[in-house]
Amino acid sequence: MALLHDDRLFPADEATRSIARRLYATVRDLPIISPHGHTQAGWFATNEPFPDPAKLFIQPDHYVHRMLYSQGVQLEELEIGKAVISDPRKVWRIFAEHYYLFRGTPSRLWLDYAFQEQFGMTERLSAATADLYFDTISEKLQTPAFCPRALFDNFKMEVLATTDSPLDSLADIQTVRASGWKGRIIPTFRPDSVVDPDFAGFAENIVKLGVQSGNDTATWVGYVAALRHERLRFKALGATATDHGHPTARTANLSAAECEALFAKIRTGGGSKDEQELFRAQMLTEMARMSVEDGLVMQIHPGSSRNHNAGIFKKFGRDMGADIPTQTDYVHALRPVLDLFGNEPGLTIILFTLDEGTYSRELAPLAGHYPALRLGPPWWFHDSPEGMMRFREQATETAGFYNTVGFNDDTRAFLSIPARHDVARRTDCAFLAKMVAEHRIEEDEAFELIQDLTVNLVRKAYKL
Amino acid sequence: MALLHDDRLFPADEATRSIARRLYATVRDLPIISPHGHTQAGWFATNEPFPDPAKLFIQPDHYVHRMLYSQGVQLEELEIGKAVISDPRKVWRIFAEHYYLFRGTPSRLWLDYAFQEQFGMTERLSAATADLYFDTISEKLQTPAFCPRALFDNFKMEVLATTDSPLDSLADIQTVRASGWKGRIIPTFRPDSVVDPDFAGFAENIVKLGVQSGNDTATWVGYVAALRHERLRFKALGATATDHGHPTARTANLSAAECEALFAKIRTGGGSKDEQELFRAQMLTEMARMSVEDGLVMQIHPGSSRNHNAGIFKKFGRDMGADIPTQTDYVHALRPVLDLFGNEPGLTIILFTLDEGTYSRELAPLAGHYPALRLGPPWWFHDSPEGMMRFREQATETAGFYNTVGFNDDTRAFLSIPARHDVARRTDCAFLAKMVAEHRIEEDEAFELIQDLTVNLVRKAYKL
Amino acid sequence: MALLHDDRLFPADEATRSIARRLYATVRDLPIISPHGHTQAGWFATNEPFPDPAKLFIQPDHYVHRMLYSQGVQLEELEIGKAVISDPRKVWRIFAEHYYLFRGTPSRLWLDYAFQEQFGMTERLSAATADLYFDTISEKLQTPAFCPRALFDNFKMEVLATTDSPLDSLADIQTVRASGWKGRIIPTFRPDSVVDPDFAGFAENIVKLGVQSGNDTATWVGYVAALRHERLRFKALGATATDHGHPTARTANLSAAECEALFAKIRTGGGSKDEQELFRAQMLTEMARMSVEDGLVMQIHPGSSRNHNAGIFKKFGRDMGADIPTQTDYVHALRPVLDLFGNEPGLTIILFTLDEGTYSRELAPLAGHYPALRLGPPWWFHDSPEGMMRFREQATETAGFYNTVGFNDDTRAFLSIPARHDVARRTDCAFLAKMVAEHRIEEDEAFELIQDLTVNLVRKAYKL
Repeated sequence: MALLHDDRLFPADEATRSIARRLYATVRDLPIISPHGHTQAGWFATNEPFPDPAKLFIQPDHYVHRMLYSQGVQLEELEIGKAVISDPRKVWRIFAEHYYLFRGTPSRLWLDYAFQEQFGMTERLSAATADLYFDTISEKLQTPAFCPRALFDNFKMEVLATTDSPLDSLADIQTVRASGWKGRIIPTFRPDSVVDPDFAGFAENIVKLGVQSGNDTATWVGYVAALRHERLRFKALGATATDHGHPTARTANLSAAECEALFAKIRTGGGSKDEQELFRAQMLTEMARMSVEDGLVMQIHPGSSRNHNAGIFKKFGRDMGADIPTQTDYVHALRPVLDLFGNEPGLTIILFTLDEGTYSRELAPLAGHYPALRLGPPWWFHDSPEGMMRFREQATETAGFYNTVGFNDDTRAFLSIPARHDVARRTDCAFLAKMVAEHRIEEDEAFELIQDLTVNLVRKAYKL
Repeated sequence: MALLHDDRLFPADEATRSIARRLYATVRDLPIISPHGHTQAGWFATNEPFPDPAKLFIQPDHYVHRMLYSQGVQLEELEIGKAVISDPRKVWRIFAEHYYLFRGTPSRLWLDYAFQEQFGMTERLSAATADLYFDTISEKLQTPAFCPRALFDNFKMEVLATTDSPLDSLADIQTVRASGWKGRIIPTFRPDSVVDPDFAGFAENIVKLGVQSGNDTATWVGYVAALRHERLRFKALGATATDHGHPTARTANLSAAECEALFAKIRTGGGSKDEQELFRAQMLTEMARMSVEDGLVMQIHPGSSRNHNAGIFKKFGRDMGADIPTQTDYVHALRPVLDLFGNEPGLTIILFTLDEGTYSRELAPLAGHYPALRLGPPWWFHDSPEGMMRFREQATETAGFYNTVGFNDDTRAFLSIPARHDVARRTDCAFLAKMVAEHRIEEDEAFELIQDLTVNLVRKAYKL
Repeated sequence: MALLHDDRLFPADEATRSIARRLYATVRDLPIISPHGHTQAGWFATNEPFPDPAKLFIQPDHYVHRMLYSQGVQLEELEIGKAVISDPRKVWRIFAEHYYLFRGTPSRLWLDYAFQEQFGMTERLSAATADLYFDTISEKLQTPAFCPRALFDNFKMEVLATTDSPLDSLADIQTVRASGWKGRIIPTFRPDSVVDPDFAGFAENIVKLGVQSGNDTATWVGYVAALRHERLRFKALGATATDHGHPTARTANLSAAECEALFAKIRTGGGSKDEQELFRAQMLTEMARMSVEDGLVMQIHPGSSRNHNAGIFKKFGRDMGADIPTQTDYVHALRPVLDLFGNEPGLTIILFTLDEGTYSRELAPLAGHYPALRLGPPWWFHDSPEGMMRFREQATETAGFYNTVGFNDDTRAFLSIPARHDVARRTDCAFLAKMVAEHRIEEDEAFELIQDLTVNLVRKAYKL
């Protein structure tokens, strides 16, 4: 008995499935390249065991607790937000009783993969097997093989990028590098805290940025210099990319004088909603300008309405499963930055979306034209078998495969990384197998493409 | 020879089809639960035979006459809008000659089902068979087995909800209840006529509402009290739900003073377009507040641009097939009501859409988080095999199955009810069979799910 | 060995594929009807050989050079925009080296078709076969069989419509008609240059229009009369349709006095952005009014953000692969023209879109109701196997098949015409085969439908 079938996610038609199987056999064991995600470098710096199953699987995974919450489970019952979980078995049992809610969701595929492949479980999680799971996982977590570094090696990870604030000392990354362990953990420059006026503590962050970088961030020139300085600090510690999580994809091209005036207003907490948005827009353009200079790859993740649930935000804070996608424009929003840098040969801007309507309408046409643009993989809610299939179906005909950049796991849940890459590999195999079966590409091309999609395009796009 | 194949709507792949067949066998004969629709309680109160095939199949079905109209048939030729059809055979022949227009549409599936299952027809409707159909159907309609109550029983209907104005006396519902017949016909509280300033006769309706409920609806407090009173009247006659057909999903959270001032303006036919929209927005919030109190389930059906064809509206009035969907926002529009009641454990708000782009972008993420939200089935133009499949494909991975509520037939055409439920059951079987064949869920789960989707989730969501 | 498989684009499932094959056999050799495209009548007037493979396949095909450009090939390397290509072999080699970029795109299918069917190639294009291709194609192009008229006959073209400015003398069309050659080449009236204030040279174009038509285009009345006059000139030379490429689908219904005042402002280069848009909107309505009079079929192609890449536009001008689709509204935009003419029995307005989200939400509901509306086939980026399948899946259930108008190749690349029609025919066969296999239509209906979709609906909608 097994939780997972070897043919999962492959098309039912036998001829097509057999092509998918053969493709998958050639990439199943390739190394994992993780150029974008939200795991913690600290895990690898200290290499301490993960404390318990609830802390590992439930607390950091907003996919998991948002579904439970939607069906009436209170976040308090799950001890969300607590540094130490007082009754992890109780939390686990609640999860197990509600495991049927995940039927048909990618979380189910990811979790079953970890349960089977990492913990050897063979019976489905349910109220009846809750304790068996809890005990088995708890026990294994205390063994050396389940310490973060050992898992990293066991997962065949070639590189893992974290996502970090410019105000972060990156001490954990430095510790890892100094440790002698060969695992490649690299930071990603994510400046939301110092470029987004809506970010909590923005004004103080600007001040800290000045102190830290030795620039006068009370002036526009000093502020820009500080950012340039911190990017280089990240780059020196292995960073190859930046990441930008703005509410919209809007960019701007203001004059130096306009920038100075706008910054003066924004820096001190002033400015209307429109001016704050204009400031973010200008900062995306500044980041692109710096990427032309320093070569860092730019990732833009727009279109999430953050902290939509006021009650939950008040009690539990950010990232609690209450971010909701919004309609997103790219065609007009990106025009200013593309007018400046869209034709730059050395620049790579990777675009992501939560609005699937833009795949065929905006993103594929843009990436299929501008040399600076590439399409990131399906993001967040769309990082799923159906979501990935829609991306390939809707983007490939216009952008081709070579304007895409492989897979991102984008996860906070370390144990889900191999599962997520496995789902992505299988879904790409399924898509390519269908194209071969329908004689839209030939089989030798599919074998080349699956290698490209799995490792080559990632390495190239992210300069890894 | 048959109009319908036993395997219709099941995937062609033999292995997948065989799973679909087995799933369908377990739900084919389950009772029909119809929690939302537009049939008339009067039919069951009087239990008179339906007069003729044209009156039964063509006149009430805007899917049918909109297609004929789009291809040059005049509504006058179909005697649309006439209380008695003077030449039903002629109308029927026009329909029969144009029956090929419905190829590939759900109307064709629904009609063929009724023709075969209820009237025993075996040859396709066409000019050649028009009279055979007309005579056969006419004859059967005069038999006791085709009276409304007999059909209701024959359809194995567990419950049928109508949709009614707060100004309706609900006399027909009372007659049915008093009749001794066991058929469960329940009303649904649909207050558009008294909460939408654009509704014809709005000002007079408010006055009537006051008289009827014994409240002074010239004041905000009296108006709200009147609505509360009428909801309870509906509830006493079996209603478990309300329904709201606003142009947008906008909600608001005004202060009592603002409500009073706005109502004073609106009540007398004043207020700008924006203020009228704000009033509707506030009234959605008021309805949610009352649902928290009285437990009625709230259905929101936004995004239809009503009476788009000015010429048709002038000649024939409302509901003539000239309503066109518009782009619909939920993320920002629902924020005010969700801030107030989104986390209420006792509240159920069922969201519908005519804008399929919102399934994966807004609706599934919202319903996969807020405990008060559920997703209604594909609505109106999207209540079709492809439409239902897109709903499952685009909503399930984020919202799961358990944040959905089963099927609504939503019809004015009584004879189409079993057909519509059959299409929904078959499409769900097809979707689940594909998931099983691709090993995304296991077979035992699919058997449980198909029961849930067919009856359990409906009963639970609508408190039936 | 072959570049193309006989079963390409047919579903993998054997039972479904066999239906698709049988359907395709009945339409494979039907004549090509091309009611909308951008080939040049001059080719057929002079009947001179195409100069070289690069001039034939690369220069006019923005699908081809936009993909190369997106991956770092400079347009200068491809000699884009040059009247004579100085080193066509070098350009061809660049193309051949990058041919793998087109995997999964429709360009690949179109090109392989032309390579195999017209030039007899059997090995895939690559760096290794670049010279073989170049030499073979070059040689054949100099033979009589590859002159434009011979190709036209060989392609079994029944009619080919070009797209022309009202300022065009149509001398080439006249030459063709006078030549004795029987090929039917007809113009299409595309008035963007004289109705769009944003069009380069708009003010002078209005003056020219006056001179040419003998009307005083300094007045609204004279301007409208001039347009009416030129439409009739086109009609006399065989035109059956007009075409309108506005940024949006907006229409208006201004009074005569408002039109006069607006035109007075616009004609001389005045007017705000909003007034310019209003002018375009009014002109769509005027064109519809004239279509009611003169019977020309109206095509509306809205929603392209033209010349998005400022750098490319400055260096190379229009139509260089830098047009990007934008979100498009039809429901509100078309209301004014539909209020006036939506119920006109003699009028046909064919709607196109670059925003696939409108298929099921707006376009199918509109075309499934208004007698004057029909749906054009998938356009531009969506004229592809997946794009055509989405169109059928999303539009058919509401609009049916009979509110669609068959296929447009819409191409500047003459050699791609048979390939494009072949892809469309195969995709329609695949769609119908699936419907038959799933028992949603019967097989005899599919055979009738594939004839309708391939030739009958085109002839009827375009009055050919």
